[in-house]
Amino acid sequence: MRKADVIIIGGSAAGATAAITARRHYPEKEVFVVRQEKQVSIPCGIPYIFGTLGSASKNIIPDAMLEKEGVKIAVETVKALDVLRQTINTTEGVITYERLILATGSLPGRLPVPGFDKDGAFPILKDIAHLEALQKRLQSASNVVVIGCGFIGIEFADEIRKLADKKVTVLEIAPYCLSLAYDEEFCVEMQTLVRSRGIDIRTHAKVAEIQGNGRVESVRLSDGTAISADVVIFGVGAIPNVEIAKAAGIKLGPTGAIAVDRAMKTSNENIFACGDCAEKISFFGGRPSPLRLASIATLEARIAGANLYSIRREHDGTVGVWSTAVGGLAMATAGLTETAAKQNGYDCVAVVVEGPNRHPGGMPGGAPTKLKLVFEKNTGVLLGGQVRGNESAGEIINTVSACIQKRMLAEDIATFQMGTHPALTASPIAYPLVNAAEIAISQMRKTRA
Amino acid sequence: MRKADVIIIGGSAAGATAAITARRHYPEKEVFVVRQEKQVSIPCGIPYIFGTLGSASKNIIPDAMLEKEGVKIAVETVKALDVLRQTINTTEGVITYERLILATGSLPGRLPVPGFDKDGAFPILKDIAHLEALQKRLQSASNVVVIGCGFIGIEFADEIRKLADKKVTVLEIAPYCLSLAYDEEFCVEMQTLVRSRGIDIRTHAKVAEIQGNGRVESVRLSDGTAISADVVIFGVGAIPNVEIAKAAGIKLGPTGAIAVDRAMKTSNENIFACGDCAEKISFFGGRPSPLRLASIATLEARIAGANLYSIRREHDGTVGVWSTAVGGLAMATAGLTETAAKQNGYDCVAVVVEGPNRHPGGMPGGAPTKLKLVFEKNTGVLLGGQVRGNESAGEIINTVSACIQKRMLAEDIATFQMGTHPALTASPIAYPLVNAAEIAISQMRKTRA
Repeated sequence: MRKADVIIIGGSAAGATAAITARRHYPEKEVFVVRQEKQVSIPCGIPYIFGTLGSASKNIIPDAMLEKEGVKIAVETVKALDVLRQTINTTEGVITYERLILATGSLPGRLPVPGFDKDGAFPILKDIAHLEALQKRLQSASNVVVIGCGFIGIEFADEIRKLADKKVTVLEIAPYCLSLAYDEEFCVEMQTLVRSRGIDIRTHAKVAEIQGNGRVESVRLSDGTAISADVVIFGVGAIPNVEIAKAAGIKLGPTGAIAVDRAMKTSNENIFACGDCAEKISFFGGRPSPLRLASIATLEARIAGANLYSIRREHDGTVGVWSTAVGGLAMATAGLTETAAKQNGYDCVAVVVEGPNRHPGGMPGGAPTKLKLVFEKNTGVLLGGQVRGNESAGEIINTVSACIQKRMLAEDIATFQMGTHPALTASPIAYPLVNAAEIAISQMRKTRA
Repeated sequence: MRKADVIIIGGSAAGATAAITARRHYPEKEVFVVRQEKQVSIPCGIPYIFGTLGSASKNIIPDAMLEKEGVKIAVETVKALDVLRQTINTTEGVITYERLILATGSLPGRLPVPGFDKDGAFPILKDIAHLEALQKRLQSASNVVVIGCGFIGIEFADEIRKLADKKVTVLEIAPYCLSLAYDEEFCVEMQTLVRSRGIDIRTHAKVAEIQGNGRVESVRLSDGTAISADVVIFGVGAIPNVEIAKAAGIKLGPTGAIAVDRAMKTSNENIFACGDCAEKISFFGGRPSPLRLASIATLEARIAGANLYSIRREHDGTVGVWSTAVGGLAMATAGLTETAAKQNGYDCVAVVVEGPNRHPGGMPGGAPTKLKLVFEKNTGVLLGGQVRGNESAGEIINTVSACIQKRMLAEDIATFQMGTHPALTASPIAYPLVNAAEIAISQMRKTRA
């Protein structure tokens, strides 16, 4: 029987990060990543396989990252977990552990409509063989329908549209694409851009059936419209993969994911969980959070990995920070949108500022940047931010995230010490973050007066 | 006699921002910017006039920014300030004030060597006529020598080198260029890049004399070397412009700038100062800081403007955040370098990480990003950071700055909630900020054990 000090089940963003963290915090311990994939896809890079990268083999988490830290990798499928004996059963035998981290990820969400399983209907799996099969199928497809217009739907659609001779349609049940991430004005802007790139986005579109004789031929909407389709891709969320945990008697939480405390410990003293398979609570109010992102997974993994043998850090709750990019336009979001803040019961002040990301605006690479900040009205605490701009928007949002995490007030942000440069950023006189905070302060003062 | 509620002397980064802030905080008050320039140069944009922009007229702070906020602009030269009568005397007459903000900026530093005033020797003034004269002179110059290899020296040299048929030499007394901003490994990298672009950087170069018969002909170094020069540009720092303040009896501070408290108030109850003319104290230890940057000026202006009629905010001390960019390579710095931290008496741990700014690294626009973080060893407090990368480095440094300002610990940063995207940022598994903090934690633990 093989022995490991620490076993991590799963080798994607959560598993890899948990393993590296465990080695850094407990260098005397042997850490095994047990995963079923020979090679692991970079989860967020999957849409780019189909256009920009051209191959699933160019989107791999390098094992060298793990090997450099002394992590052992075992490619085998876990069949069962015995929490009393502290062992896992795999296709290759039994391994004992002192501590275990469940990083089993998620499975693609299913749409409860007839025809979901027809040939040519593809859920989004991270499995490389599956992705290669989809890629092959796309080569001969003329009509591609993507169901769900969140980040993944938009990114898939835009990448597939880069291939020759494809009609790409995206179906979204909500009034706008990306409506969970952004307020309406940002959603509409991205939607308009994506449409201008030749993609047919249909909102308010409720899918009734995937039609076809064995093989998909069309998607029928609830209003009776039928859209021709050779390939249908489902970007409709993710379901925590909790099978092993559940069978082993580990408690699940309110959303059906593995229940964890703030240290990422499960109901079993020696077992932690992180990533898509684990329950999340919101940084705002502590309610369960439905967000499933690689960046969230890696944070949880850094907490789980550090806490294995003594509790060293705790989770403050999920802020939710993420971004997307289409055709040189980047959009990023952190924390609550204005809509979400109001839905969560916050009385809030929202400010939008827009200006060039260079100074003077005529410097090369100049593009208008739009920033929205949402503050709680009475306290002035920053609840969320949204940015639309060029490449740098992907890092601007991380400054916004820092402000949210440290519960900074509009006043703190108005006196933020930022660096600026003509060729790299907006002007210090009108730096968007600071400018928006100062305008919010004026508005809050007016409301109080 | 004209009357104003608030007078701001100076219309550059500090003056303009102070005026906008005053109007936002005290909308019932009339705010006058009194400045001598009809049009005001963007200070940080000045080097780009000579190459990228092509004209001083393309590098102007737009008056519309002020007018939109209801700020009045008076183009006249202030000759004296009478603090008892609360008036200023200008070339156009007398104006009374309730509150005054001194934003009189700085004058170029002088080099104590013979020949400093020869025809063809140019200090860096913000005055447009002066900049146009320099530009005209550069057209016919073959040999250009820039004295001082800080940001300004490098940016001037690189922009002038973009013009046809110029030999450009930069003289630096220190062993490396940019040594006040970066640790050696970053300085050397930038220096190598700048040299590879055909610019002759000479370090350890002490200027002894500007030679020539009336007009500059060469620069003689203390080792006897003479370097041919048609134009000599001095990028050797800035001296606070305190003439009006001093004559009016307002107290000066230890470095000769206008003394201010944490509210940016001077020794006179009704007078504030901000920007290059005002004293600065460091965020680290509270000693006087020699930094003079537009971004620092605008922060001070936001404090001064908000405090005019009641104290609403205070200065925590200057962190110092700034960046530069040459040929697509951006470098940025915040807080203390490792060298400066040690000079300031801190026992510190420094970590350098390097990796692609995309995931996978093969995504378009991918470039290696290097990040260095410096922590105080016993507390784990972040003291400073340096970034080398592409455009986004200019915003990554602002996340670093947020962490410094909130006195975040390595532990806080290791659990930072960042957003990532394949087309915009590094991978969440190896996000540089978080990765560097985690490595620092391992190192600090080892040191303690």
